[in-house]
Amino acid sequence: MANDDANIVVNGIGTVGKRVAHAVKKQDDMDLYGVADVAPTADLRSNLEGPLEGTRLFCSVPDKVEDLEEAGFKVEDDLPSLLDTGKIDLVVDATPPEIDEKNKEVYEEKGVKAIFQGGADASIAPVSFNALANYGEAGDVDWVRVVSCNTTSLTRTLWSLDSNIGVEKAIGNLVRRGGDPPQDSRGPINSIVPVTHIPSHHGPDVQEIMPDLNITTLAVKVPTTLSHLHMINADLSESVSREDVLRIFEKTPRIRLFEAEQGYDSTAKIIERFRDQRLRYDMPEVAVWEETVEVEDNTAYWIHQVHQESIIVPENIDAIRAMLNLADRDESIRKTNDNLGIE
Amino acid sequence: MANDDANIVVNGIGTVGKRVAHAVKKQDDMDLYGVADVAPTADLRSNLEGPLEGTRLFCSVPDKVEDLEEAGFKVEDDLPSLLDTGKIDLVVDATPPEIDEKNKEVYEEKGVKAIFQGGADASIAPVSFNALANYGEAGDVDWVRVVSCNTTSLTRTLWSLDSNIGVEKAIGNLVRRGGDPPQDSRGPINSIVPVTHIPSHHGPDVQEIMPDLNITTLAVKVPTTLSHLHMINADLSESVSREDVLRIFEKTPRIRLFEAEQGYDSTAKIIERFRDQRLRYDMPEVAVWEETVEVEDNTAYWIHQVHQESIIVPENIDAIRAMLNLADRDESIRKTNDNLGIE
Amino acid sequence: MANDDANIVVNGIGTVGKRVAHAVKKQDDMDLYGVADVAPTADLRSNLEGPLEGTRLFCSVPDKVEDLEEAGFKVEDDLPSLLDTGKIDLVVDATPPEIDEKNKEVYEEKGVKAIFQGGADASIAPVSFNALANYGEAGDVDWVRVVSCNTTSLTRTLWSLDSNIGVEKAIGNLVRRGGDPPQDSRGPINSIVPVTHIPSHHGPDVQEIMPDLNITTLAVKVPTTLSHLHMINADLSESVSREDVLRIFEKTPRIRLFEAEQGYDSTAKIIERFRDQRLRYDMPEVAVWEETVEVEDNTAYWIHQVHQESIIVPENIDAIRAMLNLADRDESIRKTNDNLGIE
Amino acid sequence: MANDDANIVVNGIGTVGKRVAHAVKKQDDMDLYGVADVAPTADLRSNLEGPLEGTRLFCSVPDKVEDLEEAGFKVEDDLPSLLDTGKIDLVVDATPPEIDEKNKEVYEEKGVKAIFQGGADASIAPVSFNALANYGEAGDVDWVRVVSCNTTSLTRTLWSLDSNIGVEKAIGNLVRRGGDPPQDSRGPINSIVPVTHIPSHHGPDVQEIMPDLNITTLAVKVPTTLSHLHMINADLSESVSREDVLRIFEKTPRIRLFEAEQGYDSTAKIIERFRDQRLRYDMPEVAVWEETVEVEDNTAYWIHQVHQESIIVPENIDAIRAMLNLADRDESIRKTNDNLGIE
Repeated sequence: MANDDANIVVNGIGTVGKRVAHAVKKQDDMDLYGVADVAPTADLRSNLEGPLEGTRLFCSVPDKVEDLEEAGFKVEDDLPSLLDTGKIDLVVDATPPEIDEKNKEVYEEKGVKAIFQGGADASIAPVSFNALANYGEAGDVDWVRVVSCNTTSLTRTLWSLDSNIGVEKAIGNLVRRGGDPPQDSRGPINSIVPVTHIPSHHGPDVQEIMPDLNITTLAVKVPTTLSHLHMINADLSESVSREDVLRIFEKTPRIRLFEAEQGYDSTAKIIERFRDQRLRYDMPEVAVWEETVEVEDNTAYWIHQVHQESIIVPENIDAIRAMLNLADRDESIRKTNDNLGIE
Repeated sequence: MANDDANIVVNGIGTVGKRVAHAVKKQDDMDLYGVADVAPTADLRSNLEGPLEGTRLFCSVPDKVEDLEEAGFKVEDDLPSLLDTGKIDLVVDATPPEIDEKNKEVYEEKGVKAIFQGGADASIAPVSFNALANYGEAGDVDWVRVVSCNTTSLTRTLWSLDSNIGVEKAIGNLVRRGGDPPQDSRGPINSIVPVTHIPSHHGPDVQEIMPDLNITTLAVKVPTTLSHLHMINADLSESVSREDVLRIFEKTPRIRLFEAEQGYDSTAKIIERFRDQRLRYDMPEVAVWEETVEVEDNTAYWIHQVHQESIIVPENIDAIRAMLNLADRDESIRKTNDNLGIE
Repeated sequence: MANDDANIVVNGIGTVGKRVAHAVKKQDDMDLYGVADVAPTADLRSNLEGPLEGTRLFCSVPDKVEDLEEAGFKVEDDLPSLLDTGKIDLVVDATPPEIDEKNKEVYEEKGVKAIFQGGADASIAPVSFNALANYGEAGDVDWVRVVSCNTTSLTRTLWSLDSNIGVEKAIGNLVRRGGDPPQDSRGPINSIVPVTHIPSHHGPDVQEIMPDLNITTLAVKVPTTLSHLHMINADLSESVSREDVLRIFEKTPRIRLFEAEQGYDSTAKIIERFRDQRLRYDMPEVAVWEETVEVEDNTAYWIHQVHQESIIVPENIDAIRAMLNLADRDESIRKTNDNLGIE
Repeated sequence: MANDDANIVVNGIGTVGKRVAHAVKKQDDMDLYGVADVAPTADLRSNLEGPLEGTRLFCSVPDKVEDLEEAGFKVEDDLPSLLDTGKIDLVVDATPPEIDEKNKEVYEEKGVKAIFQGGADASIAPVSFNALANYGEAGDVDWVRVVSCNTTSLTRTLWSLDSNIGVEKAIGNLVRRGGDPPQDSRGPINSIVPVTHIPSHHGPDVQEIMPDLNITTLAVKVPTTLSHLHMINADLSESVSREDVLRIFEKTPRIRLFEAEQGYDSTAKIIERFRDQRLRYDMPEVAVWEETVEVEDNTAYWIHQVHQESIIVPENIDAIRAMLNLADRDESIRKTNDNLGIE
């Protein structure tokens, strides 16, 4: 570990935290000083016995140290004590909503910057973050919130069209997964559950980053664990062709085109590609089906897939660089992508 | 059985046929002369031992009579022979695509009118039918095709807005069920499968009935058996309020509003209402969630549920009346609804 | 309503309560005096606007009357006040576990007998009840617990073999549904969740009724809503043939054989039969697949299906008769079956 | 590539073939000379652009070369021509049932040994293979069939108990996955589908390897893609304790105990561990839940999980060594496990 690299702690080793911790380890301009959690979960065990082997473990709160130790974990210290040492530059907080609010008080007291996740209320941080759209805004603040998976995918695709062509009005129709693969207690098993107010919270959440975008979102939940899927229509400011839109998507980082014709014709089929290629079958890219990109009368249509567990991972890494002024936007995106194997 | 009532035969006692046969039985101006099928399926058995008890059974083709008899069914005759008698005024054909094409040749030879279902190619009949939108067109032809479940729901809702306000452009985002409840061999189990060309066939199918409507549809398939669900946005010709749209939906036959707030907040929850109230939990109405109806800048939004197995049942009954000139549109819709318990 | 019939109230109009209330209405020797609940649920609304139309509604607890009234329900009175009148002979309590414990105190204070459901701890009542196995025991007590759906199916099949042949040892392997159709929040979506202690609670629960039976049960939960399914092996006391077992099952009430060969070859396919024949597609019978009944070396094997929502309905009706001494076992079973359409 | 290593070709790069090819690459005493297929599937593309990058591609049959080339694949030659060169020591055939039968004729003509998979009829090869149970038998034959996933798991666990204690009689109750994750067209979506003859084919398939074992299997199919799960009861020849059984399982290769208490309490939860640790989340081990191992009156009970896609991978590698006399049983198992990261 180079002494002058930024020292990062990830608090909360669940779906997001374990991935971000692993991703921090893969960067060469920051160090994963340690991870923190409160309970001896399977996620914690599988990762400390796997890709996070050798990583220091801290207990998020002082009075849970014993729980972890009794379950066989070696605990270095509690997190507040660690933060007191002045060694830590930034905490990535991936704890559940409401817990993160309480944690923020601790970080504030200790004078350590922190990144929060999209499950938190937007008010937790002055900046809601997407690397492409507003990287620069994170440099001036102590708290940043990386927006949720669905919002990240909408922001990437709509920002690319808006900055290249102009978007007059966008409507996103979201088909969301019921739960992540190991979340056995979540449903539905055989039902479609609509969000019965329009817009769903996703549209306004995009507007936290792109305040001038006219966007409305509708959302439903379905019995699948692998991915979300969005059907989008966007009225564009100029007359463009379908090839223009494809070209813009192609050149935008973290948007990736897939050809259904090659056999990648469902969420499971695209996921299967990454089962063959990446640990956890992570897909931080938004996957757009090439054949679904259409333009008619200035309205662009497309369908994209969102891997809910990993799409926000590179955004967290970029947010770290942005907040600690380690690199500018394009350099950070390039570094993150290279280190995570994103083309 | 009154001698002067129209005599109807339903050919193909599967998902649609068993329901249409049962619905014909409930009308007072037509008689279910018999049903026809080729194989001793569970559907045939369950219905002849249930709501179709006592109905005459014919074998759709002469050379399968024995199969049915060996399985314990009493067969009156084969269908072509029955059609030769001149007793039958109309056949409702609910056989699978391609089989219906072959059957049409028989009906044509025997000089008997027929109704086909939405799985057939539009070219099978000069009129694609929806009771509200083009009842009158069925009176002059020998062949009518009742459009599919998704198309029927789109036509009902969009026709109601178009005829009352005017629809400039509509976009339907369809979340389709993978299979019907007993179709064990159909998936997906854990995947979302998009139609990867835009538009999906549903938009053009609506235009078979409403040729001037500007409509685009996108569609995906999900792991559920109970219902389809559509998220729709429609640009209207006039400035109206959400209450105006609600009022139009409310007064249009076979569109029904449900309040999520009352607990009817998913496809399964609405279906549960009809489990408590109707055989087969059939819901021939399009169910619109009241809370999802919004209007902003002349664009109307809503989410509706389509019960794929039963929504086309009343349309078949109305098509019979239209083709045999038994009643005008409004009288037929009223009669059908009364007899089927549709409010 | 005949004045001298037994007056029954059903408290808790959910999955079980709505069915039992409807079943009480269909009997000719007892009256459904009213139903009770605390919240304006969709179940309550769908049934009071459906098969329970006209039934008196009471509020289970005094301080929730307003909630019901504000939601548009007409409330006669609160339940404790009704019980004070002395008009009620018995309450069928179908409220959730723990609530039923509290309710029992009220029934006890008011001196009214009550039936509880299988979700309650066995200690709630001196008798755990199955009509076939221990009808007589309910005549002497004020509290009876009708055992759960899985236990009821195990008791029916094993009691039939034990009383006719003798069962040395039985092992039940239970594949349970994750949730009922409208329970959108329950999973799993894509996982199998084992009960990780052996035996699961079902074996001991059967022994509440058949204390001398040597039975072990294993159980897992899977992503389906329609039914449970059991794979059973039972060592018999005597050498019998597969035909002997079939004959015993056939003559035992509420066990029904289905032939997979006729197309009834999955849980959904059998359910589809009852969608065509009965409201709510209820199947209070245990469905045994005829082809799965095998005997080898004195061990009998079979697979049966359990409709979790309705199998306990006739048992509740019989428990009412048993507790109020309205009929003996065989007469009660016959009456219940006739009135519910069970062959 | 060392010149004297055995040269292996894998024919059929689907679920099994891609894994076996990848596993061959990881061994140090055999070389993956190439892979073969007939169509430009997503599996083929994802792997040649991923873990099989740089591997020679052959077309399984001469007349499909063009199909592959048009889809952008570089084809070295067709497989029959390759086999003519005499360079290939053994083909692992992972093509679908019936295709493998035809392929065998080619291998026979060319004089090359081959391994087939469990989907093939047992008659395809004189030896049905499991590394633990009958490694030695493969040394004398030209054709070996590695038994299916379910059979492999039953053989491992029952062989371990039978060889250490003795099994008088075993009954396996199998809960099978409906399809693999990318198999979108397979169901069921919401149903449990029993095998309606007893025994299912799994018991007799175990007896291909352990002919003296008294075993009966029952099986059902459920809506999940991740794993099979078995509930087993086995009458043992001697009185042993639960700890004895645990110790035997623990020391047997490729059986692995998991503690539900640590959070590994469902198939998805165990799979999640391997998402964090291994590509494709492969789990070639049989996973036994420690808490489910019980012994009562000489009957042992347990529940285990079978990862259908990968459990047969190490068996294929061992079968290669056995057939080519590259190592004895224990050495081969050790090498395979080491190279695949199996503890």
